[in-house]
Amino acid sequence: MRSLLRAIKNHPELELQLVVAASALLDRYGSVHTVIEREGFHIDRRVYNIFEGENLLTSAKSTGMGIVELASAFSELAPDMVVTIADRFETIATAIAASYQNIPLVHIQGGEVSGSIDEKVRHAITKLADLHFVSSARAAERVIRMGERSDRVYDTGCPSIDVVVDALAKPPLSTSELFERYGGVGDTLNLDDAYVVVIQHPVTTQYEASRRQVLETLHAIAESGVPTLWFWPNVDAGSDGTSGGIRAYREEHSLPHVHFFKNLPPDDFLRLIDRSRGIVGNSSVAIRECAFMGVPAVNIGNRQRGRDRGRNVIDVEHDRKQIRDAIDRCVAAGRFESDLLYGDGESGVRIADHLVTVPLSVEKTLTY
Amino acid sequence: MRSLLRAIKNHPELELQLVVAASALLDRYGSVHTVIEREGFHIDRRVYNIFEGENLLTSAKSTGMGIVELASAFSELAPDMVVTIADRFETIATAIAASYQNIPLVHIQGGEVSGSIDEKVRHAITKLADLHFVSSARAAERVIRMGERSDRVYDTGCPSIDVVVDALAKPPLSTSELFERYGGVGDTLNLDDAYVVVIQHPVTTQYEASRRQVLETLHAIAESGVPTLWFWPNVDAGSDGTSGGIRAYREEHSLPHVHFFKNLPPDDFLRLIDRSRGIVGNSSVAIRECAFMGVPAVNIGNRQRGRDRGRNVIDVEHDRKQIRDAIDRCVAAGRFESDLLYGDGESGVRIADHLVTVPLSVEKTLTY
Amino acid sequence: MRSLLRAIKNHPELELQLVVAASALLDRYGSVHTVIEREGFHIDRRVYNIFEGENLLTSAKSTGMGIVELASAFSELAPDMVVTIADRFETIATAIAASYQNIPLVHIQGGEVSGSIDEKVRHAITKLADLHFVSSARAAERVIRMGERSDRVYDTGCPSIDVVVDALAKPPLSTSELFERYGGVGDTLNLDDAYVVVIQHPVTTQYEASRRQVLETLHAIAESGVPTLWFWPNVDAGSDGTSGGIRAYREEHSLPHVHFFKNLPPDDFLRLIDRSRGIVGNSSVAIRECAFMGVPAVNIGNRQRGRDRGRNVIDVEHDRKQIRDAIDRCVAAGRFESDLLYGDGESGVRIADHLVTVPLSVEKTLTY
Amino acid sequence: MRSLLRAIKNHPELELQLVVAASALLDRYGSVHTVIEREGFHIDRRVYNIFEGENLLTSAKSTGMGIVELASAFSELAPDMVVTIADRFETIATAIAASYQNIPLVHIQGGEVSGSIDEKVRHAITKLADLHFVSSARAAERVIRMGERSDRVYDTGCPSIDVVVDALAKPPLSTSELFERYGGVGDTLNLDDAYVVVIQHPVTTQYEASRRQVLETLHAIAESGVPTLWFWPNVDAGSDGTSGGIRAYREEHSLPHVHFFKNLPPDDFLRLIDRSRGIVGNSSVAIRECAFMGVPAVNIGNRQRGRDRGRNVIDVEHDRKQIRDAIDRCVAAGRFESDLLYGDGESGVRIADHLVTVPLSVEKTLTY
Repeated sequence: MRSLLRAIKNHPELELQLVVAASALLDRYGSVHTVIEREGFHIDRRVYNIFEGENLLTSAKSTGMGIVELASAFSELAPDMVVTIADRFETIATAIAASYQNIPLVHIQGGEVSGSIDEKVRHAITKLADLHFVSSARAAERVIRMGERSDRVYDTGCPSIDVVVDALAKPPLSTSELFERYGGVGDTLNLDDAYVVVIQHPVTTQYEASRRQVLETLHAIAESGVPTLWFWPNVDAGSDGTSGGIRAYREEHSLPHVHFFKNLPPDDFLRLIDRSRGIVGNSSVAIRECAFMGVPAVNIGNRQRGRDRGRNVIDVEHDRKQIRDAIDRCVAAGRFESDLLYGDGESGVRIADHLVTVPLSVEKTLTY
Repeated sequence: MRSLLRAIKNHPELELQLVVAASALLDRYGSVHTVIEREGFHIDRRVYNIFEGENLLTSAKSTGMGIVELASAFSELAPDMVVTIADRFETIATAIAASYQNIPLVHIQGGEVSGSIDEKVRHAITKLADLHFVSSARAAERVIRMGERSDRVYDTGCPSIDVVVDALAKPPLSTSELFERYGGVGDTLNLDDAYVVVIQHPVTTQYEASRRQVLETLHAIAESGVPTLWFWPNVDAGSDGTSGGIRAYREEHSLPHVHFFKNLPPDDFLRLIDRSRGIVGNSSVAIRECAFMGVPAVNIGNRQRGRDRGRNVIDVEHDRKQIRDAIDRCVAAGRFESDLLYGDGESGVRIADHLVTVPLSVEKTLTY
Repeated sequence: MRSLLRAIKNHPELELQLVVAASALLDRYGSVHTVIEREGFHIDRRVYNIFEGENLLTSAKSTGMGIVELASAFSELAPDMVVTIADRFETIATAIAASYQNIPLVHIQGGEVSGSIDEKVRHAITKLADLHFVSSARAAERVIRMGERSDRVYDTGCPSIDVVVDALAKPPLSTSELFERYGGVGDTLNLDDAYVVVIQHPVTTQYEASRRQVLETLHAIAESGVPTLWFWPNVDAGSDGTSGGIRAYREEHSLPHVHFFKNLPPDDFLRLIDRSRGIVGNSSVAIRECAFMGVPAVNIGNRQRGRDRGRNVIDVEHDRKQIRDAIDRCVAAGRFESDLLYGDGESGVRIADHLVTVPLSVEKTLTY
Repeated sequence: MRSLLRAIKNHPELELQLVVAASALLDRYGSVHTVIEREGFHIDRRVYNIFEGENLLTSAKSTGMGIVELASAFSELAPDMVVTIADRFETIATAIAASYQNIPLVHIQGGEVSGSIDEKVRHAITKLADLHFVSSARAAERVIRMGERSDRVYDTGCPSIDVVVDALAKPPLSTSELFERYGGVGDTLNLDDAYVVVIQHPVTTQYEASRRQVLETLHAIAESGVPTLWFWPNVDAGSDGTSGGIRAYREEHSLPHVHFFKNLPPDDFLRLIDRSRGIVGNSSVAIRECAFMGVPAVNIGNRQRGRDRGRNVIDVEHDRKQIRDAIDRCVAAGRFESDLLYGDGESGVRIADHLVTVPLSVEKTLTY
């Protein structure tokens, strides 16, 4: 959302109010709130709403507490509209807190398909939202078919692509920058060598399987021997399964060619991927940003099922052999051409411009 | 939901667990929980989640707290599925608490159109729900067009119609039964005389207008002089506007032909409507139950906009003259024939039978 | 607290931040927040924390939610100290929200004895508080005996007495002012006639008894025939019992000489009491403010047990005959001389002056 | 509390209901709830109330949410009394949830002095509690001086000492048992060699200092070279400081003679301490259980200030030199004789016996 935050902040007819909640406030997810402030944004409210426990019950409770707290924040800040993105529990909490207070709700990234609790939540947010800024033509079509008025749906591309443009305007990330700034755990790797990046999140509705699934990826990476930069999963119900699998594997196996990180600021993260030979796991970055960057991607399992793909994606199952073979193909393949499927890098400015003129209505009804 | 509760309780292959929440626990909405127990149901959990304040902020917060508390209840009771009905804030709280815990969610009354925050919420619940028991063919069509699999949508009719069949199996409600049991405020009326029933709820997204709107209805009733039984609105953001309007009017005007009630048990309420010459206001009872009963209805404003109507409904605006004319026409018109638009009185048993065999899956994805 | 709020606001070395919570935000307790704003104070945060239900469970839950919300408010406002008063659930919520955030806690009205859940809570707050501004020499002694350092205990008198001085600086309240401004329910009474004021709160730890108790008072007032101005009880677990008793009595009996009010702004309330022949019930006003004003008081039951009394108080049990006899004696007795037991009317300024110089420490330990 | 849980469970006139909350449910504090179930207890309610963030704000909010949830649990379970122990945020949450629902509150470990937020909270709980089971004669005296009736204060010794008796009835813990069962991080140490145990918790009211303080201890341990078993701190505001300090130190320094554990079941933990040459840090175990066991203790800083000490304790400041010297003295000194200062190992049975006959009243008032 950075490009959009910046475009709103810089727009003479808009005023930015920023509420930061959930994992963005937590150390173990990289203290995103400090990144936000370092980039010059003022945070109007910090909302701590995550219950410890990392199970399905606490996911639900964190959603509820998010509503309780965001409702107060919105009531105090009294914005003309609330803008939110994606499909997470803090997103639906935001949607409900705004909707019940009759504050027009703007949703970014509606109409995408993934096939899990996140998809249910994403479409539920679409039904609560008054305005939709979607990432692709197919997404626009889906939102309209769900009964939204076509004049409330804008295909602006995804602001996440804007961040790529920003990041790649800088010189490539060097080995020393990476390890001096972010430490992490494991031996230092040389970014001049061919390397891959792994990000694997738990699949929320398959809680017990998360641990088993990540072990397949760990084995594949171990067998491939390719230098690897591995990022811990986000907060999500089930992260215990994935994180626990990683911890268990590391206690029993040596992984000298793997270095683990918690989180990186977006710019450095994207520059790191841009230099890599490929991305492995089930992150949406592999599908979206890597389409634009032309970085090969090994997409594991069904977390990204139904998302439109560029040429850069190889889909595999949670199977160490399939994963390893796909990694080898990626490393061999080299870069693809940029694919504008998810945006052209100007979405933030485009959305901000629309926000000035969109109708601020909370009345809507099914179109059929 | 009574017929469904009974059908589940009596079904040899189903076990009923009952969670009672929100206004159903409150004195000022008729202590529905005591009605439920009196009818022989065991309440497994009572969930107090309503914040005092009756404004838009507290509506949102009550939703959030509903999730926090219902999530615990569902975790402890560990049901195979959660069944919920309609479009209120406790309904979406239920939907989120179940969905994030991967408990199959069954939604009753999806696919209906009303044009307010309730409609947004209703369709958002549809997108979270795994199974849909809808009230009419049109509702089924809408749910499917929103991207739900047609084999997960069942047109069973609405269980609220079953309650009508139950109620009308008893002899008509007598004047003495009514006033001795329920007291209320105002002079005693004679149910043998022609009378009308008024129920007017605040329209959530038009908060400030609620007071002005109810005054139109009050003037129309005053001018018509028709004996009237008036029911206070439900808990809802905005009830202050409507309730306040009623209280203000009563302090300044005499209404000797109007008697006010808080709430009645469903059976007596329906028997009362069945004897009436018509129902006035914006309650869904006028559209649904009264279609089946053939009772004339004056439907005011847009709260029921988009709902399928039987022949019994006259739609008017919040205008005292229009309301009064429609009342006169109703009283003159007499009863209509029964219309099965919203069900035939067997929905509860039909839904319970389906619950035994439906797939218990929480995986779903858009059909397009 | 008004005199203290004003003294803080006007003090050149202090900055006032005001958080308004709980029943002070609710219509049915007189919308105290609007009174506060009308007197020129800026409200920094509004905290809705009361769960509907008015039973013991919701009292506890409202306390918990008060902490959740006040903690955020204090974190955002970052005050140098938090000042709170008395013994209610929002007071202990305030105390915990401040204590766990290491914000020095100032408690007013510690060391008083009443013999109910309120007393437990009051002393628990004393153990959490860093500084104590107490109302009387006996209260100071008790706080010190509980293990607090004597140099952290200040006998300043009670700021509630300051409000009396303010109020009585105005001309007496006239009959027309009272009824035109505040309406209420019942016939208009003439304030030039001898009248009494009744305020009876539920006794929290005797929930079921509240209804029976208030009926004794109602019978006594009915039998005495003395013109009466009756105030509804505060929000408190148990208010259903008391309020319900009043409502039930009114439905069955005529009380032409009694007029009911919800709440009055402090000034008018005190001017009304000052003109009265006596105050009846279990409010602390009878013990504290009326000592200073010299107004006779019939104190019923044990809610004020253990509180120091001036000469103006007659203690009786919840017995209609005792109550009625005491009312007769009061009305006959006439005014007493002012008693400075609870303060001299300068407490607000005195406390504010201390706040500038008190140590801002959160470290403390038992003195024995 | 194990001995008390067992004594209640086994008592023919008592019925045990068990509510497990807060850190006892969390993986990273050793999943105490699974230990509880493994020992044969049924858990009636699990209460997730901890907000992620580990700062002062989230401590306060976790307290509030604890009340919200415990209140529901107590309302549903309807116990005759609630028993709680010590001084933590879940303890005061328990106390408030019970008190406002008029459930008699039994507090264990009142009257102890430590000099931090925990002490404020401990004494606040004393003022809410109806019955007090204290660990020592001095604690009894303090509770009574705070205004509690002496016939409601029982000096039973502390049930934590009973656990020691249980644990030491088993054979000593072997090296292989320890490392095979509990893994941990670091090289395996030989328990036949002289070793020490370290437990250092953050000091809640000195948040920023936690990191600096733990570094002193780490340096002292590093310099002493003594084989060390180090336990991570509990959940508490500030644990980031301590945990962060440990993590930072380990990334920069090699600690081959130190092995880190998250948590052990009580029995194995105590058997491990019993075999050690000494305990180092600021845990109450060093003061209480080690007095009974006669294990030397290096108590660092002021977290245990004001607690009665046996002969086994050497108090030092957060200074690496003082800590190291004290460790050397401990290791040289050898075992002390058992000191019954905090109990004789029979407290659980003694308390359970009292629970059968204590008065179940919630009425109390200051004794002065």
